[in-house]
Amino acid sequence: MLRELDLEQRLDEAAWDGVSEVLKTRLGVLQQEIRARKIPVVILFEGWGASGKGSMISRLISNLDPRGFSVYSIGMPTVEEQRFPWMRRFWQKLPAYGDIAIFDRSWYRGISLPERELSKKEMRGRLDEIQDFERQIIDDGYVLIKFFLHISRKEQKRRFKALAEKKITRWRVLDADWRQNEHYDECLDSFDELLTRTDEFDRSWTPVGATDKRFATCKVFETVIRALEEKLADAPADDSFLGVRNSEDIVLLPAPRLRDVSLDKTLGEDAYRRELKACQKRLSELHNVLYHKKIPLILAFEGWDAAGKGGNIKRITQALDPRGFEVIPIAAPSTLEKNHPHLWRFWNALPKDGHVAVFDRTWYGRVMVEHIEGFCTDEQWGRAYDEINRFERGLAGWGAIVLKFWLHIDRDEQLKRFTERQNTAEKQYKITDEDWRNREKWGDYEQAVDELLMRTNTDYAPWLVVESNDKRYARIKTMRAVIDAIEQRL
Amino acid sequence: MLRELDLEQRLDEAAWDGVSEVLKTRLGVLQQEIRARKIPVVILFEGWGASGKGSMISRLISNLDPRGFSVYSIGMPTVEEQRFPWMRRFWQKLPAYGDIAIFDRSWYRGISLPERELSKKEMRGRLDEIQDFERQIIDDGYVLIKFFLHISRKEQKRRFKALAEKKITRWRVLDADWRQNEHYDECLDSFDELLTRTDEFDRSWTPVGATDKRFATCKVFETVIRALEEKLADAPADDSFLGVRNSEDIVLLPAPRLRDVSLDKTLGEDAYRRELKACQKRLSELHNVLYHKKIPLILAFEGWDAAGKGGNIKRITQALDPRGFEVIPIAAPSTLEKNHPHLWRFWNALPKDGHVAVFDRTWYGRVMVEHIEGFCTDEQWGRAYDEINRFERGLAGWGAIVLKFWLHIDRDEQLKRFTERQNTAEKQYKITDEDWRNREKWGDYEQAVDELLMRTNTDYAPWLVVESNDKRYARIKTMRAVIDAIEQRL
Repeated sequence: MLRELDLEQRLDEAAWDGVSEVLKTRLGVLQQEIRARKIPVVILFEGWGASGKGSMISRLISNLDPRGFSVYSIGMPTVEEQRFPWMRRFWQKLPAYGDIAIFDRSWYRGISLPERELSKKEMRGRLDEIQDFERQIIDDGYVLIKFFLHISRKEQKRRFKALAEKKITRWRVLDADWRQNEHYDECLDSFDELLTRTDEFDRSWTPVGATDKRFATCKVFETVIRALEEKLADAPADDSFLGVRNSEDIVLLPAPRLRDVSLDKTLGEDAYRRELKACQKRLSELHNVLYHKKIPLILAFEGWDAAGKGGNIKRITQALDPRGFEVIPIAAPSTLEKNHPHLWRFWNALPKDGHVAVFDRTWYGRVMVEHIEGFCTDEQWGRAYDEINRFERGLAGWGAIVLKFWLHIDRDEQLKRFTERQNTAEKQYKITDEDWRNREKWGDYEQAVDELLMRTNTDYAPWLVVESNDKRYARIKTMRAVIDAIEQRL
Repeated sequence: MLRELDLEQRLDEAAWDGVSEVLKTRLGVLQQEIRARKIPVVILFEGWGASGKGSMISRLISNLDPRGFSVYSIGMPTVEEQRFPWMRRFWQKLPAYGDIAIFDRSWYRGISLPERELSKKEMRGRLDEIQDFERQIIDDGYVLIKFFLHISRKEQKRRFKALAEKKITRWRVLDADWRQNEHYDECLDSFDELLTRTDEFDRSWTPVGATDKRFATCKVFETVIRALEEKLADAPADDSFLGVRNSEDIVLLPAPRLRDVSLDKTLGEDAYRRELKACQKRLSELHNVLYHKKIPLILAFEGWDAAGKGGNIKRITQALDPRGFEVIPIAAPSTLEKNHPHLWRFWNALPKDGHVAVFDRTWYGRVMVEHIEGFCTDEQWGRAYDEINRFERGLAGWGAIVLKFWLHIDRDEQLKRFTERQNTAEKQYKITDEDWRNREKWGDYEQAVDELLMRTNTDYAPWLVVESNDKRYARIKTMRAVIDAIEQRL
């Protein structure tokens, strides 16, 4: 891809003067249009050292409304950032619908200049995650434009020398830059391979010959303008529903159907007390080990209203060091969250390594309440299972233990608990009109749960259906499962 | 304060068994009540090494609903955090209304264990900031409870030894801990001084003799319960308006009244082009120096609708390296932002050292639109000027250059610009019904602006009224002011 590029292309000053204002004005107008249509745009610049990424970005934004874009310069991840999944810092920088984000280096740095040596398996994992990420944002309506600024070895050397000669720019040329120039051919091979491999699925790379600044600028402007115009010419939103997307490269495990789960399991009070004490003791020890070994633990709780999520979670967190866990209650998304892909807010809530995150309701909201209530389109729903599988695969690849619980009760038990809540002063806050409304849709939810169990039960992020008509039984079963999963890992 | 404490107080097991469940249950109920009343609570634990802060927190939260609280363990600030004002990480952890935050060590660490040696002036500055912070959250309705867990030198030594003897706890005792024990008396003096100095203004410290775990736990529970009960017994919200609060220890500079500002200044097209080029060149150079010297620059833009904030900002940002600035547009606060003190969202938007933050509308919204439209109470409005003065003093103390601009036009000019926007297709998005409504309240706004100029013009964060009937004149005046302020600093 890079070797075929003609690096001698130039644009003379007269030609440039003729077009530059036109291009800048056009881009300014397009910015307003994509803003009005709430189309988000991601533009990234990769390229050789001294290929002119920074000054290119300055020219690109010179006529943009500064309220509508952000520029991010991607250096080494900070020590803090290294305690989270490596893609998190890019998810966090994803622009809201209608905004533009411009990256000076990007997630490709995680492959071409990783913060530590990666095994082949890790490298493949990162490539998968990049592909998952880019596909997901494109599906979500983002315009993704990727530039690689290319210059020859000779040109690069000339530029480094020029920078090194001047006192005020000397600091910009690092040893690593000179090394890149020395090993230019090997670097070129690996850049070329990277671009080719990551262009397959979306054709979003544009290699740009950057020997001549005017030529390169013109090419960048034209590429961005064309991409925005094409997007604006599209139908308002592609909602055509083509069926649920399968996760072809992901192995799914068999899962039960709710109607086949027998709910008559119970546990006596004495046995419960004994078991609870033993489980909490063991969990407390294991939390210490997780902390020490920097293994993150993610517990995802779903279940019928009044199935006992809160009580279950409390029994677990009682055993944990409060400095090492967080409970994240998930309610309806905020406006800012609605203006991002549905998984964005969960990326923002991930635990550090060695910490425990307990999600009280989860990213499965998209395929349950949001689908049933029509808060998302069928198209969005249809790809959510696959997006979730990939999200969880990334978490597991990072090293997290991921466990998902469906707390299951039957309709009679729910009615009993609702009524009790209604009739007990200090429990009334727990029951709302919405709970009663949801109850009316039991059948819809049952179908949704059966489908999500079938489509997202993986060995790296398994579902456990917890029989919860008996609260004591449910709590111990959940804790045992957490303990088993941790012990298995250690 | 600490020396007078009796460290021999104990509670026997029988007495403890009699009260422990009662205390836990009561606290659980109170948590629901403060949640319903949207009262936020901050509880912090300071104390000697091995005084039992961590296990105390575990007991305190054992019966709390984990969805309503967070626990933060405050270590050394990360490298990233050190690039921001030191109080920022605590502002970010401030609980939303109705939530509880528990700190294992806190902002007092910034004084007792600072990340680098502090000059006396810096130390005084930090004490001021702590006082400003605590006063502000208490005024805002937060319950603040501060514990210091106190043990004797002998007891501490005994505990360190016990920890060091066991293999699995050995890592918990650091060299710094042993040093603290060696220099116990000096440490005691400085703790005592710190507590005394920071107890003056709100009496929120509770020193706790922590030799006996049961006694200490009982004391902590009782203190928290009493504080919550007292708060709940208060009238729903103390809205009694006692007049605008003055910033007595802050020197205010004289400021003009809008009606005295002459708006007939203009600048010709040629002179403008020349000046613009020169200013942008100079600003670009200076941005480099700021970046290198790690000096943050904060530009706050306010002004009449259609006064030209956007155009003004664009001329400045065009001169800046896009990797080193951010424009922050301020709209109405989100729900989460409304559930925090009004300055919270601005703390979250501060630039790193060496970066530039341009605020397009600012924290002055509270004393303009929010006051005029009744979105805040008179009481909240009346203390906002003082809170803002202290906020800006903290920024200046951190090392930031802070400049505030009021872009001033007259009513006729605004009408002309509104009409033009209405009649120009690509500018229509810039004009809304709200703009017309605000225009009707010109007199209210003029009064609010005169008052804020009078009450918040300081030498560390000065206001500049920019005559903006002529856009060219306004842009150059603004840029010149920015350049002057930077040059003066360097």
